[in-house]
Amino acid sequence: MTDRTTVAAAAEMFEAVKNWGRWGDDDERGALNLITPEKVAAAAAGSRGVVVSCGRPVPVLPAVDNPTPAQHMMVIAGDCLDATGVPGLETALDYVGLAFHGMAVSHLDALCHVFHDGLMYNGVPATEVKSIGALRNSVMAAADGIASRGVLLDIPRLRRIPWLEPGDTVTAAELDAAAADAGIEVGAGDILLVSTGRDARRAEHGPWDPIGVGLAGLAPDCVYWIRERDIAVLGSDGVSDPLPNNDNGWPVPIHMCCLVAMGVPLLDNLDLSRLAAACEAEGKWEFLFTVAPLQIEGGTGSPVNPVAVL
Amino acid sequence: MTDRTTVAAAAEMFEAVKNWGRWGDDDERGALNLITPEKVAAAAAGSRGVVVSCGRPVPVLPAVDNPTPAQHMMVIAGDCLDATGVPGLETALDYVGLAFHGMAVSHLDALCHVFHDGLMYNGVPATEVKSIGALRNSVMAAADGIASRGVLLDIPRLRRIPWLEPGDTVTAAELDAAAADAGIEVGAGDILLVSTGRDARRAEHGPWDPIGVGLAGLAPDCVYWIRERDIAVLGSDGVSDPLPNNDNGWPVPIHMCCLVAMGVPLLDNLDLSRLAAACEAEGKWEFLFTVAPLQIEGGTGSPVNPVAVL
Amino acid sequence: MTDRTTVAAAAEMFEAVKNWGRWGDDDERGALNLITPEKVAAAAAGSRGVVVSCGRPVPVLPAVDNPTPAQHMMVIAGDCLDATGVPGLETALDYVGLAFHGMAVSHLDALCHVFHDGLMYNGVPATEVKSIGALRNSVMAAADGIASRGVLLDIPRLRRIPWLEPGDTVTAAELDAAAADAGIEVGAGDILLVSTGRDARRAEHGPWDPIGVGLAGLAPDCVYWIRERDIAVLGSDGVSDPLPNNDNGWPVPIHMCCLVAMGVPLLDNLDLSRLAAACEAEGKWEFLFTVAPLQIEGGTGSPVNPVAVL
Amino acid sequence: MTDRTTVAAAAEMFEAVKNWGRWGDDDERGALNLITPEKVAAAAAGSRGVVVSCGRPVPVLPAVDNPTPAQHMMVIAGDCLDATGVPGLETALDYVGLAFHGMAVSHLDALCHVFHDGLMYNGVPATEVKSIGALRNSVMAAADGIASRGVLLDIPRLRRIPWLEPGDTVTAAELDAAAADAGIEVGAGDILLVSTGRDARRAEHGPWDPIGVGLAGLAPDCVYWIRERDIAVLGSDGVSDPLPNNDNGWPVPIHMCCLVAMGVPLLDNLDLSRLAAACEAEGKWEFLFTVAPLQIEGGTGSPVNPVAVL
Repeated sequence: MTDRTTVAAAAEMFEAVKNWGRWGDDDERGALNLITPEKVAAAAAGSRGVVVSCGRPVPVLPAVDNPTPAQHMMVIAGDCLDATGVPGLETALDYVGLAFHGMAVSHLDALCHVFHDGLMYNGVPATEVKSIGALRNSVMAAADGIASRGVLLDIPRLRRIPWLEPGDTVTAAELDAAAADAGIEVGAGDILLVSTGRDARRAEHGPWDPIGVGLAGLAPDCVYWIRERDIAVLGSDGVSDPLPNNDNGWPVPIHMCCLVAMGVPLLDNLDLSRLAAACEAEGKWEFLFTVAPLQIEGGTGSPVNPVAVL
Repeated sequence: MTDRTTVAAAAEMFEAVKNWGRWGDDDERGALNLITPEKVAAAAAGSRGVVVSCGRPVPVLPAVDNPTPAQHMMVIAGDCLDATGVPGLETALDYVGLAFHGMAVSHLDALCHVFHDGLMYNGVPATEVKSIGALRNSVMAAADGIASRGVLLDIPRLRRIPWLEPGDTVTAAELDAAAADAGIEVGAGDILLVSTGRDARRAEHGPWDPIGVGLAGLAPDCVYWIRERDIAVLGSDGVSDPLPNNDNGWPVPIHMCCLVAMGVPLLDNLDLSRLAAACEAEGKWEFLFTVAPLQIEGGTGSPVNPVAVL
Repeated sequence: MTDRTTVAAAAEMFEAVKNWGRWGDDDERGALNLITPEKVAAAAAGSRGVVVSCGRPVPVLPAVDNPTPAQHMMVIAGDCLDATGVPGLETALDYVGLAFHGMAVSHLDALCHVFHDGLMYNGVPATEVKSIGALRNSVMAAADGIASRGVLLDIPRLRRIPWLEPGDTVTAAELDAAAADAGIEVGAGDILLVSTGRDARRAEHGPWDPIGVGLAGLAPDCVYWIRERDIAVLGSDGVSDPLPNNDNGWPVPIHMCCLVAMGVPLLDNLDLSRLAAACEAEGKWEFLFTVAPLQIEGGTGSPVNPVAVL
Repeated sequence: MTDRTTVAAAAEMFEAVKNWGRWGDDDERGALNLITPEKVAAAAAGSRGVVVSCGRPVPVLPAVDNPTPAQHMMVIAGDCLDATGVPGLETALDYVGLAFHGMAVSHLDALCHVFHDGLMYNGVPATEVKSIGALRNSVMAAADGIASRGVLLDIPRLRRIPWLEPGDTVTAAELDAAAADAGIEVGAGDILLVSTGRDARRAEHGPWDPIGVGLAGLAPDCVYWIRERDIAVLGSDGVSDPLPNNDNGWPVPIHMCCLVAMGVPLLDNLDLSRLAAACEAEGKWEFLFTVAPLQIEGGTGSPVNPVAVL
């Protein structure tokens, strides 16, 4: 299998890895069902108490990789302390607004974010995502927060390069090699984080257009790898899919197979540079990993700032 | 000391508990400095892997306790799968916008959220909170996430009532009693959560006006208690301060003493009902507690969905 | 006909006044087609140059008649003159956001704002209003602005009372009487403004809940009156329909018959108090009236501040 | 005088054209005071009833000349007709949000939008523009709408070219020539519109970066010209100032002298192409011109869709 996929191969893969019905016909949690208290307890047990976040700053400045900047505005700043009208109540307030999908905000994709042939996870029709919000498969499936063992597979470290170039792909064999290097057996319920060095490249060269120029991501054969190990959540410093899009009707096979077929939520646009440094310093690439999406009724995801506790 | 405070007592208390300069004149992390890796590791060590969140749903419907509802709107729903123009790229996107302070959204107050006499934590002038965002003491001090031992003091459980009535106050003696009941010694770096049963009351009676009718909160003497134990973060299902406001120029002494004097960030409007039930079920009122504010440059806080791992 | 309507009467009325196909099967301008340059020129000709607006302030404070307040926030205020980074470029910027339908914002309803049995003006299916915006009958039909003769029918003046009470209705006979009083023959292409004194009542008694308590509006027989005279646009200080809603499946017959059947755009929540005073002072109740909706592609309407030139 | 200005010349010009105190020390209407009912009546009198708007579509797509796109989202689209819960109430609603200053939205600049040396029109300190909104010189000075004689000076027509290139400047002599060509004597209370053909160039070549590449605008000597004729409002298809900015501490002398010194509100980013065509067709370049800013308390301006009635 090459670094992109054909229609036939993608369709076959989609069918092969499908989890529809596996946790009941009405299930909306998908692969989150694979996380057990035992899993979480084991991840917590070995903790050394090193806390590292994987979120990027909310991107309010327009940039080539941020064409729809977030809104951040003060409602009251420190220039009018009597604005509340209550003696002694001196306060500053602000507002934040985000169309969080895209290539700039660290966010969780809920299972209703992507469809294939008009269907989302568990065969639910796309039309269940109404203009008033998703009636099914919304981010509320993860409202209670996600915690499990997180595993960082640091591909630039494996390849001994500072970062992968835009459009480059990571193969399943490399996932195996990185896991072996880290002394980790990746398994059911794990949160898999794949670093491509995007943030290091951005720090060095500035932002670039992820759509036109590209982003590094996972080769299609990683889908089988993820399904075989029963990964619960997949995250990346890019969007897991390599860009530019596959151009054959399966533009984003990782999104399509993870979100739609397997019910694996995705974490896009993480900043994994701090985590990679901490893992290197501690000599361990596994940790307790928590993701706390805002409880947005009908939401297709949430901006997040995931926290690893090594 | 009564359930409210006088000008003289409040001013004396403010001076008595002040942490300005304790972690350096330029410090912006305040009591977060009290959290050590050892503290976190110890909290994680005893985990049974039970994951519970303490956030409320993002409140998009107007209500008497939600006068400025959040914006949640779809950018693309499931009714126009060809909207992207890319064959096979079927996606739903949304937008969320929040003025998160107030009485409805679960949020973290950064140290720049409240001032006293024109100053914020560490003596920084309020004017450093500009209309373009806070230049000092913003939520970025907690950008890397907060994790520590969390402790739930469940006051309705202590009093054997379903909830505290609006305006009622919790005394320092009750905090001691609840901690003793739970078999916990509250100490440096802990995240203290005080339940007043607000959500149980709301579930039973519907929403009410927190400003006019009131909210249960902490009596002023709790400020000394918090300072003596070196609490890192204080959270509540209300806003920690009892409402209606104290009416003597110290309208919210808990906010003023925690945020301004001590540098203790606050968690407002949590839903502690699920956590209380889980603590009861597990027979333990301490846990690993993580708070993951969005990385909002210049922000006065962040909407959050804190996650406890019991 | 009483002040409310029955299912049978409403359905008959809807069919009787229908303009579908009148200006072509693809027409989206509806009754705006009735405005001719001659009409506009005649309205302008008699002008005395008295300029009065009919908009209300953008309502940013929550109120019982404004449950979803607008967002108005500064992007840069006057507290950080060097924020632009350009020497000498001292500027203040702001942001305004509105969900403008409802009972508080002065706005124009486009023909895609309301449906009857799943259809909008000219028989276009409601599904043509997508989550990404209306593909048909959007506010862009009025993008080039609306100008015509405006006519104010001041019902409190006719009745010699300061205002109509919530829920009260104005009959077609009263429209005739008010027009006769004003010495006006209402005709094709006119913009009809009906004052019920809402703003005078609000100024005296404060805001009230328009949904629960009600608003004064037009009795159903006004629909025939409007159709017979070929009114181009209908506006009111309420929402033209009396509230509470008719409760028989035709909740807002004025909206349904104007927008859907006749293609008559509506102006809701105007402030007609200044205009009424000016008309009284000038002794004339007709004028050049301009409405300038923002050019919102796919929009269901626009906030507006209509301007009369007497 | 060249096409740019020096510090000394700009400072001298600023002082020379100042209207501070002219209409009283508390005045906030500035040059709008120059518009009289007679002026408006005269403009209306000659009308032929041709209605043309000068607004551009609200720009929701990111582009090189639109780095902070507006928000336009449906609250309810036509895919869920029962969403209201009221039988028969089938409705579509939307939301629009704009940070309207910049180079893309047609908008009115209020007198508080720009400062010079910390002062705005009439000597009011910039600090009166608070983070909660402008306390002085806000757009509410024009809340009642603006109507007066509009005059289009079509510079590409004068030069017999399709458009001016970015950065090019229009001199006062050219304003005279264009007025003479149009047979118009520009005078007190007029709304002056200067076309540079920006929209024709954009239609041909697509958008470009106005900051980096530039925009055509008025040479500094036009300031004296405007002051001598007592123009009430100045509008352009660009931002009146040529870009790139003057680089000597007077980056935008037209903005600074009009808004701050003279109290002349500005209309930025108009689309004058339809108006120019209508003027050509009618053989007249004067008309009744109406501007209807939203009534935004404390606002620095408003998005507008100005309407000319030829």
